[in-house]
Amino acid sequence: MLTRIDHVGIACRDLTEAVARYCSVFGLTVASREVNEEQGVREAMLLVATGADEALGAGGGPGGSYIQLLEPLSPDSPVGKFMARRGEGIHHIGYAVTDVRSALAEVAGSGVRLIDERPRHGSLGASIAFLHPADLGGVLTELVEPRRAGS
Amino acid sequence: MLTRIDHVGIACRDLTEAVARYCSVFGLTVASREVNEEQGVREAMLLVATGADEALGAGGGPGGSYIQLLEPLSPDSPVGKFMARRGEGIHHIGYAVTDVRSALAEVAGSGVRLIDERPRHGSLGASIAFLHPADLGGVLTELVEPRRAGS
Repeated sequence: MLTRIDHVGIACRDLTEAVARYCSVFGLTVASREVNEEQGVREAMLLVATGADEALGAGGGPGGSYIQLLEPLSPDSPVGKFMARRGEGIHHIGYAVTDVRSALAEVAGSGVRLIDERPRHGSLGASIAFLHPADLGGVLTELVEPRRAGS
Repeated sequence: MLTRIDHVGIACRDLTEAVARYCSVFGLTVASREVNEEQGVREAMLLVATGADEALGAGGGPGGSYIQLLEPLSPDSPVGKFMARRGEGIHHIGYAVTDVRSALAEVAGSGVRLIDERPRHGSLGASIAFLHPADLGGVLTELVEPRRAGS
């Protein structure tokens, strides 16, 4: 079902400072910056590795792996509440899937509760859905169907 | 410096139960099971994606991405202390590098404190070193030089 680790989401107080640190320490580059009002975050995707498709020049879909830095837009957003409890740090993990709707059905069938019954908009044009951490050992888990090439 | 997300480390109370859950929900397979006395963990590596080398049949080194499930051997081990504070959940992120010694020198030069001044033994025969979370926005970060093919 999972095709790769798409990204790891990291909660930070100051996105500008966090982006500068990660780019400086690890030599990463910024693939995108977005504000997602629905999720209450200002975010940046830092490219760790291009996907096999891109590496082969096959013109495939976005198949990279990213660090997603997340600054809450308000203290009562999900990431804001996470930071109030735990401070800065790793917030969730996102796995790439080929078809997020069929993956959601399969995961629900195995007894894991869904936060999102239907996919919503994620970073880089992806369709995403979150699974409940209580059924996955405390790990907030996201399924990511990347935007298709050319769409 | 970073070539991919090598793994995400997840702390769990019961390794057998966590492995069964991840394999059942996501269809993952176990790549290795190890006990690392030095780090005080019983662990399993679950393969999420094979590396480009393997996918191409090029016989390259272990280039996959993994979920690393970690059960503490005792409450006073690092993972045991983490779980006493935070419960089960994401513990650290490991990035693959080509040369862990030169990567450590480069990271130290950028002002990030090192937990490990010298590489030690990690999962799947890798040479690994941890960086201090206080200088990386609360994220415990591991650099991983995978074992070379045939070595």
